[in-house]
Amino acid sequence: MLIQEKVQQAVSLLREYDIDCWVTFVRESGIMRDPMLDYLIRSDVTWHSAFIVSRTGEAWAIVGQMDKQSVEDLGVYTNVLGFVESIKDHLLATLEQLSPRQIAVNYSQTSEVCDGLTHGMFLTLKEMLAEIGLAADRLVSSEKICSSLKARKTTYEIERITKAIGHTLEIFDLVTPYIRPGRTEKEIAAFMISEVEKRGLGFGWDKSHCPAVFTGPETAGAHYMPTDRPVERGHVLNMDFGVKFEDYVSDLQRTFYVLEEGESEAPTEVQKGFDTIVEAIRMAAAALKPGVQGVAIDKLARDFIVSRGYDEFPHGLGHQVGRFAHDGTALLGPPWEKYATKPFEAIEENMVFTIEPRLKVAGRGVVTMEEMVLVTASGTEFLSQPQTELILIG
Amino acid sequence: MLIQEKVQQAVSLLREYDIDCWVTFVRESGIMRDPMLDYLIRSDVTWHSAFIVSRTGEAWAIVGQMDKQSVEDLGVYTNVLGFVESIKDHLLATLEQLSPRQIAVNYSQTSEVCDGLTHGMFLTLKEMLAEIGLAADRLVSSEKICSSLKARKTTYEIERITKAIGHTLEIFDLVTPYIRPGRTEKEIAAFMISEVEKRGLGFGWDKSHCPAVFTGPETAGAHYMPTDRPVERGHVLNMDFGVKFEDYVSDLQRTFYVLEEGESEAPTEVQKGFDTIVEAIRMAAAALKPGVQGVAIDKLARDFIVSRGYDEFPHGLGHQVGRFAHDGTALLGPPWEKYATKPFEAIEENMVFTIEPRLKVAGRGVVTMEEMVLVTASGTEFLSQPQTELILIG
Repeated sequence: MLIQEKVQQAVSLLREYDIDCWVTFVRESGIMRDPMLDYLIRSDVTWHSAFIVSRTGEAWAIVGQMDKQSVEDLGVYTNVLGFVESIKDHLLATLEQLSPRQIAVNYSQTSEVCDGLTHGMFLTLKEMLAEIGLAADRLVSSEKICSSLKARKTTYEIERITKAIGHTLEIFDLVTPYIRPGRTEKEIAAFMISEVEKRGLGFGWDKSHCPAVFTGPETAGAHYMPTDRPVERGHVLNMDFGVKFEDYVSDLQRTFYVLEEGESEAPTEVQKGFDTIVEAIRMAAAALKPGVQGVAIDKLARDFIVSRGYDEFPHGLGHQVGRFAHDGTALLGPPWEKYATKPFEAIEENMVFTIEPRLKVAGRGVVTMEEMVLVTASGTEFLSQPQTELILIG
Repeated sequence: MLIQEKVQQAVSLLREYDIDCWVTFVRESGIMRDPMLDYLIRSDVTWHSAFIVSRTGEAWAIVGQMDKQSVEDLGVYTNVLGFVESIKDHLLATLEQLSPRQIAVNYSQTSEVCDGLTHGMFLTLKEMLAEIGLAADRLVSSEKICSSLKARKTTYEIERITKAIGHTLEIFDLVTPYIRPGRTEKEIAAFMISEVEKRGLGFGWDKSHCPAVFTGPETAGAHYMPTDRPVERGHVLNMDFGVKFEDYVSDLQRTFYVLEEGESEAPTEVQKGFDTIVEAIRMAAAALKPGVQGVAIDKLARDFIVSRGYDEFPHGLGHQVGRFAHDGTALLGPPWEKYATKPFEAIEENMVFTIEPRLKVAGRGVVTMEEMVLVTASGTEFLSQPQTELILIG
């Protein structure tokens, strides 16, 4: 179903971008898996394998003999060719027949999800093409194709992301009464992990820090694993958490405040920090729509937070989500070198983004929420019910 | 522990192969994970990251600020540098200071476990090096280093592989009385999967075909998933199965014969096929030792099977096993193009190989056993107790 849709989408994209053919060239995908394979096959392939989609609408799979039956079963390839000793004859014969002006292959300096071709495999392909007189300059980056396959979510994909979000929010609700002074980050994480497993879900990212739980002002910062640090009164606690539902993930953050004895609400500086994040997310979501650039949305939230007297957050405002927590090229991010051209890619309908500004409240901890939105024809729609009130722990 | 051992091993290998430094250059390792990362960090890294080992014995990790603490905790890097906007300054300063004659990076046409560098990341590194006047010809393949890190198993690694094998053999024993005429391949697989999960183990490869179960003469061939085909009397059944114990795996095959009513032993042609495989494995294990080439071992078993009147098996005789089922460069394989130079690599002490010849018995099914051996100083030692009798199903 997904594979059929995505191969069809790839044919349209080849026409849209005026590219003759797209080749995904892999081996031993159980070891390193080109992210594009999820749209091309179900399980893994062992020997050198090539999946070729042509703008004519035809598609070829050339795989080791032992993988042939599994690929034929998909019913999406016009031709499935198996080999025993070498992929070369079938691959070159197919490409000679196609005689493409360009062969788009999966490499990209900008975008990791479009960079599934290893350097060794690139060299192998280049050498093989030379044997039939196809110069290496026929090889072009498939970044635009891969980015669009990732970005233009189908109904099938959005449904699954929405389910993952639903589970995540439920688990945040379930863990809330479990949090109390003295509980450690590790205990809180273990409670949530057990709930994920009970539901038969996967994790949004490596289980060692999913959820990530941070309590108080002295934490190591994002991406660190839960520690034995106990929850303390007067501290802010935040969590970064996501689950995987039928191969699609969520990625959300929530912020809690642990009341001091006698307090019935958070102190002013915590509330101000929280309100700032709520407003930054609202502003960003309101401005996000097809045609704008992510860099502008990032700047809006970043400048607003700085204008309220906080340091700017040390990462992008938001990323696309799909089969991975970070899953796409276009980014709501600042123009930092490591983001390359990602912040300048045009936003399109059916992209799914996080919005996740953060700020520090001195002596208290980090306030950060992460919501997920779907870009619609004219704006955005929240896929997660946004947090608009601090969750108070008694 | 493992990481400390492997970084030390890398320093020795740099000296052995006369290479100045080794750089593993990655990003978003949760999406595509360079196999070498398992020896360099525990969890994943998000932004561009470089792990540099020098023949001087020093090691640098340059990672995104958010990943810094986790990497420092390992205690194996002389220097851990964090960045926010770009890896470039730290990376170039470190390489300028090292001024290496060669920078070994993880690409290889021959070996997938040595080919963790994507083409996009290769281009990025090349461009950065040009900025400090280091020509691209300083970049060399780290294949020898990566192959040896994979191949030269430490006691820590062999212990874990042995544990994985022990579980696998126990589960083969447990499933044997469950197999009977009428049971389907899927039911048999489900029984074994539930036992793996009960024991808190992982799977040797993708769970969709681990175990792979094949019964009778009409199966799709290796690497196909279990089907609704029922076990029938007079058929040969085989299974390919492995588990993961603390990140190390097993990969074993066993062959069963389903007795006809009134039979008390397998028919002659099945027994002959079985005896041929037993003998082929024995011969191969007896000949395997440091210094020989895998191609010679493969030929020994292949020729013997052909001499007994069977077709040659359509794959290599055996592969290395470690953190993946297929995990190494040197291969016991024929000189087919897709295997590149793997069959010609010298065998070394402490490599772990499978030996897995197969043959078809017309009208009955496929006879195949897969054993695992450790290469010792002078020969081999079976890590799995080899199957020497057909398992008869009543």
